[in-house]
Amino acid sequence: MARIIHEPSAIERAVVQSSVKIFMINGPSRTSIAHLIKSTGFSKAQFYKHFENKQDLYAAILLENEQDFGSRISDMRKRESLSKLLEDFLLFRIEDIEKFRLLIEIEVELDESNNRCERYLNWKALNQQHISEFTEVVASHLPLSADREDAYAYYALVWAMARGFCSIAETDRFYNLVQDRRAFTQFLLKALQNLTSINLEKGGS
Amino acid sequence: MARIIHEPSAIERAVVQSSVKIFMINGPSRTSIAHLIKSTGFSKAQFYKHFENKQDLYAAILLENEQDFGSRISDMRKRESLSKLLEDFLLFRIEDIEKFRLLIEIEVELDESNNRCERYLNWKALNQQHISEFTEVVASHLPLSADREDAYAYYALVWAMARGFCSIAETDRFYNLVQDRRAFTQFLLKALQNLTSINLEKGGS
Repeated sequence: MARIIHEPSAIERAVVQSSVKIFMINGPSRTSIAHLIKSTGFSKAQFYKHFENKQDLYAAILLENEQDFGSRISDMRKRESLSKLLEDFLLFRIEDIEKFRLLIEIEVELDESNNRCERYLNWKALNQQHISEFTEVVASHLPLSADREDAYAYYALVWAMARGFCSIAETDRFYNLVQDRRAFTQFLLKALQNLTSINLEKGGS
Repeated sequence: MARIIHEPSAIERAVVQSSVKIFMINGPSRTSIAHLIKSTGFSKAQFYKHFENKQDLYAAILLENEQDFGSRISDMRKRESLSKLLEDFLLFRIEDIEKFRLLIEIEVELDESNNRCERYLNWKALNQQHISEFTEVVASHLPLSADREDAYAYYALVWAMARGFCSIAETDRFYNLVQDRRAFTQFLLKALQNLTSINLEKGGS
């Protein structure tokens, strides 16, 4: 089942990094490949040698971020408590909120266009693998009575908090709050400390 | 400063309600006014008597939902604890997640288009007023040492959780979780119970 996912080449990394910056400024849908190639300083031939089209580049961006997350998971395994672990995960997601917003935007676009390029499928597979690995680490901190679903719920909750935090900056309704991102981040982290003792007992009708 | 916001007429309510259903199925950007008028069973003349254009209708949808929220706030005032209060707010937001997603989509669109129609400005004013009222109720449950910012943070946190939960359904990465929305909702509610004792002491550098 496991896919062999090659590490990106130096030039691929460089194109991905410049493109992320340009996409963050202009928005991915408003950036043409021609503009991108011009701004990154690579030649058209160099670009198309490594990327089929814009969606392939999107997938490369997701994949690179996913590989970063993979290397973080090893650190997360060493965390002594669930709250520290969830904190790590939240901070990874929101440490660069403009980039996180870009990642979500291109993920939704690739998802909606039913993209099937190799890099996208690789990203999906790696993403699934990381969710499994991460929830396994979460589960190791939960009481024995907890099941896999509970570990998933923690993952989804933190992801939802990060995603929600990120969307707060999308409209001006939360302008005041987002201005003090650091204070709100501190509040979220304190919230996480309290979250780790959720009563997981199943009950009710 | 207070705006006088009229209650919508019966026909406005009816158009709003039918449009919400159609937008939820087709997506607002893919639904033409012609299609909308045809599906709602109103005449073109009736529609344009009440709504200037599609954005005006969007604003009417936001406004109606905001007025619903206004009537909920009175109930929330009676809540005996902060956790019950936050629960009410979360449930209001996620009880119809497809509708919530629609509301966010049209809010972002109106925001980005710099819309200045009367209904939109009315909605913005009412929204601000509700945020004030809601955070006032939150503040009444917080320790005396807490300030207004802390009450805002609780509001934003619950809003972020709702928004994040909603976005989980946007891509298929959380398909398994979202299938069991009821279980995840229960988990979120339990999480909220734990959130209400966040240590609000300011500290650190």
